[in-house]
Amino acid sequence: MSEYSQSQSVGIVAPQTARFSEPLALRSGAFLADYELVYETYGTLNADRSNAILICHALNASHHVAGTYADEPDNVGWWDNMVGPGKPVDTNRFFVVGVNNLGSCFGSSGPLSINPATGKAWGADFPLVTVEDWVDAQARLADHLGIAKFCAVMGGSLGGMQALCWSIRYPSRVAHALVIAAAPNLSAQNIAFNEVARQAILSDPQFSDGHFSEKGEKPRLGLRVARMIGHITYISDEQMAEKFGRQLREGLKFSFAPEFQIESYLRYQGDKFAEYYDANTYLRVTKALDYFDPAAEHGGSLAKALAPASAKFLVVSFTTDWRFSPERSREIVKALIDNRRDVAYAEIAAPNGHDAFLLEDPRYLATVRAYLNRAMS
Amino acid sequence: MSEYSQSQSVGIVAPQTARFSEPLALRSGAFLADYELVYETYGTLNADRSNAILICHALNASHHVAGTYADEPDNVGWWDNMVGPGKPVDTNRFFVVGVNNLGSCFGSSGPLSINPATGKAWGADFPLVTVEDWVDAQARLADHLGIAKFCAVMGGSLGGMQALCWSIRYPSRVAHALVIAAAPNLSAQNIAFNEVARQAILSDPQFSDGHFSEKGEKPRLGLRVARMIGHITYISDEQMAEKFGRQLREGLKFSFAPEFQIESYLRYQGDKFAEYYDANTYLRVTKALDYFDPAAEHGGSLAKALAPASAKFLVVSFTTDWRFSPERSREIVKALIDNRRDVAYAEIAAPNGHDAFLLEDPRYLATVRAYLNRAMS
Repeated sequence: MSEYSQSQSVGIVAPQTARFSEPLALRSGAFLADYELVYETYGTLNADRSNAILICHALNASHHVAGTYADEPDNVGWWDNMVGPGKPVDTNRFFVVGVNNLGSCFGSSGPLSINPATGKAWGADFPLVTVEDWVDAQARLADHLGIAKFCAVMGGSLGGMQALCWSIRYPSRVAHALVIAAAPNLSAQNIAFNEVARQAILSDPQFSDGHFSEKGEKPRLGLRVARMIGHITYISDEQMAEKFGRQLREGLKFSFAPEFQIESYLRYQGDKFAEYYDANTYLRVTKALDYFDPAAEHGGSLAKALAPASAKFLVVSFTTDWRFSPERSREIVKALIDNRRDVAYAEIAAPNGHDAFLLEDPRYLATVRAYLNRAMS
Repeated sequence: MSEYSQSQSVGIVAPQTARFSEPLALRSGAFLADYELVYETYGTLNADRSNAILICHALNASHHVAGTYADEPDNVGWWDNMVGPGKPVDTNRFFVVGVNNLGSCFGSSGPLSINPATGKAWGADFPLVTVEDWVDAQARLADHLGIAKFCAVMGGSLGGMQALCWSIRYPSRVAHALVIAAAPNLSAQNIAFNEVARQAILSDPQFSDGHFSEKGEKPRLGLRVARMIGHITYISDEQMAEKFGRQLREGLKFSFAPEFQIESYLRYQGDKFAEYYDANTYLRVTKALDYFDPAAEHGGSLAKALAPASAKFLVVSFTTDWRFSPERSREIVKALIDNRRDVAYAEIAAPNGHDAFLLEDPRYLATVRAYLNRAMS
């Protein structure tokens, strides 16, 4: 029996809300007078409050990292294969915190929330938030929870960028940073894909300059196209070839109905996303990605940017990830080594592209497990 | 003085129109009762009619391959660096034919043409056409011009697919096929990008199910997003990084106005394209790309598909082309070698991605020049 088969779910969980009334200064120069963060916790904070792990989410995810809800048994947390009793982030040992980022659409203050100044939904008036802003807000949540220092801050993709940002911005509050399938900044091509996705949303007449909810509308078609574009970059060319190839659904139709399986798959992904995601949030999260660039303030030197970091690091990349390729992770590793920091690096041979960080891969999960075991020993 | 500096333009050219009244059976099962093809020629057909070269165009190009127009001196043909007096396709020696494909929007019968059955523009009612249909129509143009056999049929990208198709479909009419920056079919990822581009157009309310011209409208926003998506795949990640990187226009604005240079560039490309290109054509041309797959009728064996071909081949790929990578060109080379065909293969180290086939690259141009010199010697 493998160790995984003994793993269990954290079971039924419930989100909590923390309200903050001290204004938050945003990187853009704007302020949020007050705001709420929705979060979940799993496991128990130990007596010396030294076993807390913060999980940061990527583009479309949320605070719901593990477990299910009593009234939604099929709504399983997005990193349930990583977090739970006996799992790599073992909730029998760790107190795990998942938090929905500011500006998101799953409960924390964002475009869907009521703007106290107007009594209406913020919509397009919600300020642009950055990775730094998210991390600052998460630090206040840590204060609220009585966590002076996280044993680990971790995340994949944009979540990994937050872990990296934590290590720079709050070095004394992070013992270990786990930066998975991330990059020190977006390449021109990464920005290009984000920009096309944004244009798809902004071009949708139902976007109404971001005030669609007041009209009872939603830019579903724009969101759908945006998600389809993004989705292509999440999976590898080779996995698409293997999973879909040139397979047809029912032969050629010589029409614009879906003919190839890959077309149906992308439409399905786009439709699903357009139902549950908010367009203003999508615009903001892609901007946060574009803006993230800790080296920029240091003449382009990532080593200088990482000089304040005192955490120990695990950096993980996946061989077929072409969104944030292993080369980008190695830039982070190089900059940490230049600073003589303690860094472990794993390049996982996985066929799944960027999505690999969310998937069940024994070598990947074992790497995280072993790292955290060592960190706590 | 290099040989290139002695090259000249073919000068002022004028398109011609050929009308065909014999119905054309399309691969979809539909027929075109009659149709027109717009074409240009450069150079002089020799006495034994053995020096004709057909140039096939890619997605957004046309019959206007070289030279300029008297009333549009800045409208230079799309392959003017390749075709002209003293150029690799030397119009002092060759009679060169450029033809606008059926279903396109530059003069040949297509969605913008009048449907004789209704007296109105075809719009969305123009049938879906395939690479095979284009080649069949081009063969009739060859008949019209009295060309029994082309010295060469050549093209880049989708144009290279037409050259490949010619070699299979009309083996006795092609002495040489030059297949540049092409692939034997589209990968799932290629189809995925095409599908997202199509969805951007189909989602634009001004598309009006393809009957926008009757309403005096145009789905510019959809076309713009479609072109932006396509454009990302035409240039290499490394070239984007070198040309644009993370350069800002005027600092961060914390808004959705263009901030990074790459954003401005893509918007500019998208806007330009949306002005001159037709949405129904874009949909059809991407479908023609998706459908092209000569191996499909032969159990997936490209070697079997190419068995009828008797032409000699030049296959060219570019190292940083990730749309149609060198690996895809090598599949063609392998299938030709399996058939013991005469094939030369050049893999050009170029930083420009897929677009390299249109650009001034001395090694690339010298390769085509040398091949054609040998072919005619």
